[in-house]
Amino acid sequence: MISDSQPLKESQTMRAGPSQEDIRRHNLGALLRHVHLGGPISRAELTSKMGLNRSTIMALTSDLTAAGLVREELPRETGRAGRPSLVVRPESARVYVFAFDVGPDRLAAARVGLGGVILDRRESVRERGPFKLDELTGTLAGFARQMRRKTRPDTVCVGAAAAVSGGVRKGDGVVRFGPNLKAEEVPFGEELGRRLGLGLPVSVGNDANLAALAEHSRGIGAAVRDLIYLHGDVGIGGGIIAGGHLLGGHDGYGGEVGHMVVNPGGRACGCGSNGCLEAEVGERALLESAGRTRQRQPAEQEPPGQPREPEPPGQRGRDAVRAVVEGADRGDIMAQDALTRIGDWLGLGVANLVNIFNPEMVIFGGTLREIYLGSAAQVRTQLALHAMAPQRERLRLRTSALGDAATLVGAAELAFAHVLSDPLEVLARVTG
Amino acid sequence: MISDSQPLKESQTMRAGPSQEDIRRHNLGALLRHVHLGGPISRAELTSKMGLNRSTIMALTSDLTAAGLVREELPRETGRAGRPSLVVRPESARVYVFAFDVGPDRLAAARVGLGGVILDRRESVRERGPFKLDELTGTLAGFARQMRRKTRPDTVCVGAAAAVSGGVRKGDGVVRFGPNLKAEEVPFGEELGRRLGLGLPVSVGNDANLAALAEHSRGIGAAVRDLIYLHGDVGIGGGIIAGGHLLGGHDGYGGEVGHMVVNPGGRACGCGSNGCLEAEVGERALLESAGRTRQRQPAEQEPPGQPREPEPPGQRGRDAVRAVVEGADRGDIMAQDALTRIGDWLGLGVANLVNIFNPEMVIFGGTLREIYLGSAAQVRTQLALHAMAPQRERLRLRTSALGDAATLVGAAELAFAHVLSDPLEVLARVTG
Repeated sequence: MISDSQPLKESQTMRAGPSQEDIRRHNLGALLRHVHLGGPISRAELTSKMGLNRSTIMALTSDLTAAGLVREELPRETGRAGRPSLVVRPESARVYVFAFDVGPDRLAAARVGLGGVILDRRESVRERGPFKLDELTGTLAGFARQMRRKTRPDTVCVGAAAAVSGGVRKGDGVVRFGPNLKAEEVPFGEELGRRLGLGLPVSVGNDANLAALAEHSRGIGAAVRDLIYLHGDVGIGGGIIAGGHLLGGHDGYGGEVGHMVVNPGGRACGCGSNGCLEAEVGERALLESAGRTRQRQPAEQEPPGQPREPEPPGQRGRDAVRAVVEGADRGDIMAQDALTRIGDWLGLGVANLVNIFNPEMVIFGGTLREIYLGSAAQVRTQLALHAMAPQRERLRLRTSALGDAATLVGAAELAFAHVLSDPLEVLARVTG
Repeated sequence: MISDSQPLKESQTMRAGPSQEDIRRHNLGALLRHVHLGGPISRAELTSKMGLNRSTIMALTSDLTAAGLVREELPRETGRAGRPSLVVRPESARVYVFAFDVGPDRLAAARVGLGGVILDRRESVRERGPFKLDELTGTLAGFARQMRRKTRPDTVCVGAAAAVSGGVRKGDGVVRFGPNLKAEEVPFGEELGRRLGLGLPVSVGNDANLAALAEHSRGIGAAVRDLIYLHGDVGIGGGIIAGGHLLGGHDGYGGEVGHMVVNPGGRACGCGSNGCLEAEVGERALLESAGRTRQRQPAEQEPPGQPREPEPPGQRGRDAVRAVVEGADRGDIMAQDALTRIGDWLGLGVANLVNIFNPEMVIFGGTLREIYLGSAAQVRTQLALHAMAPQRERLRLRTSALGDAATLVGAAELAFAHVLSDPLEVLARVTG
């Protein structure tokens, strides 16, 4: 991003460095971003959307074609007379990244082509329990090897990134905390990069942050500059797009809305506090309120980090949460009461965030998708009670468009970021 | 701001528009911003800070000098041999803006010179009561006239802006809500512009937002890219700088952290909700807890918008709040208990914001400056209990450096914004 206080340079007038190259680099990235996010587009449309002239667009697309990042084709049909404008398409089958997702219950990996196409995908169940770095990165690297073996020889992997259910330090991919993964101070990005053996660094981000990025890039929040994405899994995560940019905070831990205290003195939270949004709305609160799991007595609540007594399978996880929402639909009174209670706290949390951020859209993803759909009346009531009218009058409440793929799609966007900011670097790698 | 997907243009290589002019315009703004925010600076330092060459810096400073925005002078003394580098200074005495502040208890106006120097200032007490648009804009316009009469003939007013204790719609300066001003849907900016009669539009912003901008531009938060400024007056306002940009939200109401519910079912708030940070920490909560004002019974709490029974003077306002903090210092038990209670809620609110934003700094301004200083232990305890360790480990808690001037200084920054983004426009006005 170019900030206001940085000077622009132009060699012709100001003789101050390699500016033609800078400008070309920037414009190549801008054009590739159009194709990557918007899909196939004619040269004529690019000319008009980017405000550059035809010969410039032609030069840029030639460079990107030479780099193997896009290809140009005649359009299938054209209603107009005259020579049709060539259509620029991303080389989705050829240029790809690896995207990974580490959730409390799931390990997933995907091969995602330029343009955001999921080309291949692997998934396995993760047992809740201690975070085993070796085993986990081994599984993910194995998935990548399997998918790589199936690719054509001319394909090229240009990046890798992972979404993790936890707080990730900006810069080095260390998972600083992840109560629902039982992870603490884990050098995850480094180790996964080593296991992949592709000679590529692995970027790591918080799963809800990356899902927010995905919904903002190519989901329900495309073209929305101010949005809040709330992600339900075992816990509650958040990703915030403010003024078009992901809110990262000073060290990269921004968006941890699940640990906003909404109910002082309320339910114990895995983070060590009480009454956090996650504690009142997360999986355990819902399942216990609905009588779907053995209610823990306060004396039984273990301090965070200690192993829990194993529970019978099927009593937790996404399927168990969905079963409560379906039960409420079918008339199960306990499930209905649970959803009402959870919806009230969720609504209060959303109202707080609406007052703080004045977003255009709030998106409910992961298990919060079903929970919101089952408790929308409560959420709206709490919003009316606690969010200020001007803040909420143009607010839209939506559910995730990308569903369970949001975290993987977001990780892929993170992996593609360096390609979009400097396609020439990829060109150099491919041709050099 | 230039976003990543906008193309850069260079006429020489790409023949696409008046790019030399665009670049010159951008660089003039960047240079003026350095001088405006950093103060006098030598050409040599500008050359190194901006990464442009000497002849370019010379050309830019010549243009700004011609526009009367800066002047160049020989430095007072130089320790070095050889020709000294000229020092570029903002024309603070010549180029100014009008800044206004409308608080619950105070009307203020200032003439602020380029470089952020307060050249002149007027202030009057505002009686709490209905928002009288005519009277209020009349007073402020009168202040401006008085200050203008005292200026030299060669001075030039380049902008005007106002800080208002309320929610201001982006774009048109309408005060949508301001429970502590009893303002609702007031076309404030338009009316003040008309009354000033300077032929200049008046930009309007929320007071805490503008104070945040001021502390970020030239206060304790200079060079801090992620900060939260909390402003105490009758209510609690907030201004958030995220990634170097003021968080405005979709419609401009971002940062209303005072209406985050921290205590569900708690004290009634002027916004119509209960248990908002403002209700638990604001002036009334403090004074009532300290026994400094007649305690209202629940039945007495009027609905928002209705006139309150008048209270004896001296029992409220900034002085009354400060008196509680001083009382606690001197051993007044009720005052100490009140500060403990208020500090606990303030700390919980700050912990929530730290989890959500992961800021580098939280700044306490307005009456919260004294309240924080009197209850720092409570605030830190709540942070330790409720903010996640990685989020708070590098956090700095600070008090406002600009004090009561923060809102006016912030309004001045808002008024100067268009000059900094396009100094040529000012040049055209002055020379044309």
